[in-house]
Amino acid sequence: MTPKAYIFDVFGTLVDWRSSITRALQDALDAKGINADGAALAIAWRDEYDPSMAPIREGRRGYTNLDILHHENLVRVLKRAGLSSAFSEQEQTTLARAWEKLDPWPDTAAGLEAFRGLGLTAPCSNGSIALMSHLARYANFHWDCILGAEIARTYKPHPETYLAACRALQLRPDQVMMIAAHNADLGAAQAAGLGTGFVPRPHEHAEPSRAERFPTGDWTATGQTLFGLAQEIQSMHARA
Amino acid sequence: MTPKAYIFDVFGTLVDWRSSITRALQDALDAKGINADGAALAIAWRDEYDPSMAPIREGRRGYTNLDILHHENLVRVLKRAGLSSAFSEQEQTTLARAWEKLDPWPDTAAGLEAFRGLGLTAPCSNGSIALMSHLARYANFHWDCILGAEIARTYKPHPETYLAACRALQLRPDQVMMIAAHNADLGAAQAAGLGTGFVPRPHEHAEPSRAERFPTGDWTATGQTLFGLAQEIQSMHARA
Repeated sequence: MTPKAYIFDVFGTLVDWRSSITRALQDALDAKGINADGAALAIAWRDEYDPSMAPIREGRRGYTNLDILHHENLVRVLKRAGLSSAFSEQEQTTLARAWEKLDPWPDTAAGLEAFRGLGLTAPCSNGSIALMSHLARYANFHWDCILGAEIARTYKPHPETYLAACRALQLRPDQVMMIAAHNADLGAAQAAGLGTGFVPRPHEHAEPSRAERFPTGDWTATGQTLFGLAQEIQSMHARA
Repeated sequence: MTPKAYIFDVFGTLVDWRSSITRALQDALDAKGINADGAALAIAWRDEYDPSMAPIREGRRGYTNLDILHHENLVRVLKRAGLSSAFSEQEQTTLARAWEKLDPWPDTAAGLEAFRGLGLTAPCSNGSIALMSHLARYANFHWDCILGAEIARTYKPHPETYLAACRALQLRPDQVMMIAAHNADLGAAQAAGLGTGFVPRPHEHAEPSRAERFPTGDWTATGQTLFGLAQEIQSMHARA
């Protein structure tokens, strides 16, 4: 089955959130003359990400967009670091929007362009429509539409996130392929009936132990770069 | 208030649905050697458009995407014209997708590019996410995201359609401007609190009596072309 659309994880798969968020935080700390580690703060902030979505995924909290969660999580992380009073409410609100400006990996632009030649392309991220729109402007992504958590009103890896994307595309799950650097994301997409494409992003995390260097599931396709993955998928279809 | 985003009506405002749909129908009729008027059939099909959305707008029917409505309407129009048996079910399904391939007006590309320089841009059409995605590929539109009926689960001119677009952009209605060639669309957007921009499309309809040549409301801005409208808005803000 040749996919008619490709949907993408964004944070980690297409963009290097860690170095971009580290830079945003370090710049903010340096501007205040605060001697604190932006990199550690960035990791602490990201570590709040998954737990903050869990209540929504489990139905214990109504859908709340990731921009609000990022803000709540930043407030919590700054408080824990004793930095709450160093930043005004307005400064914290501005800083929370750092997720709108994340640098793509070096091969992302060419990779996404290759995927555009294969079918429709859209993010299937936990980021909101607004966040994905701003990020696409910053990173120069050209999407056909924005899918993901806001369309589904829940968060990955809840199966509804992948299925809502397929419904919006008016395609069956087996006509859609999920592309990600995270095996768990692909596992959930596969369980929902989608095709799966894996690309390793060994520098997403600072600690080598957190890197997902290899596919751990039986994914439809694997590539060493996003462009390589698109080529692999194209040649699979040419052979079929 | 300088808008941060511009949302657009599509059918009639950005694309010439009448000549494109006429051509698709005439080609299908000619291929079958049927002596029937594609232009009249196109108008009959479009005349079913608004009545078919009314039950959904009024809450008497659950949200049903425009692709399904277009198909239902085509089936009805072919039946009325005595042409039901001339086209197989598959052919009718394919023909219903003619709305994915509509030619833009000559000034649309330059106009949308100018608006992209002013803020975020998205369709706020009654078309579905899939329909708008396919149409954007065909017409070479570069949107930041796809808003409109499917996000709102109702149809324009229901106020929720405009307000859901603003919420998805995380903007207040007065930070968003609706652009359309239809005064009623702008009236509904204005009542919902949005800014309004009018561009006349005198050739949208075949009958001169149906043309909306002039703004009939107190719109924020008016232009003779889409590019001219973008320039007018830009100069309003430069003066402010």
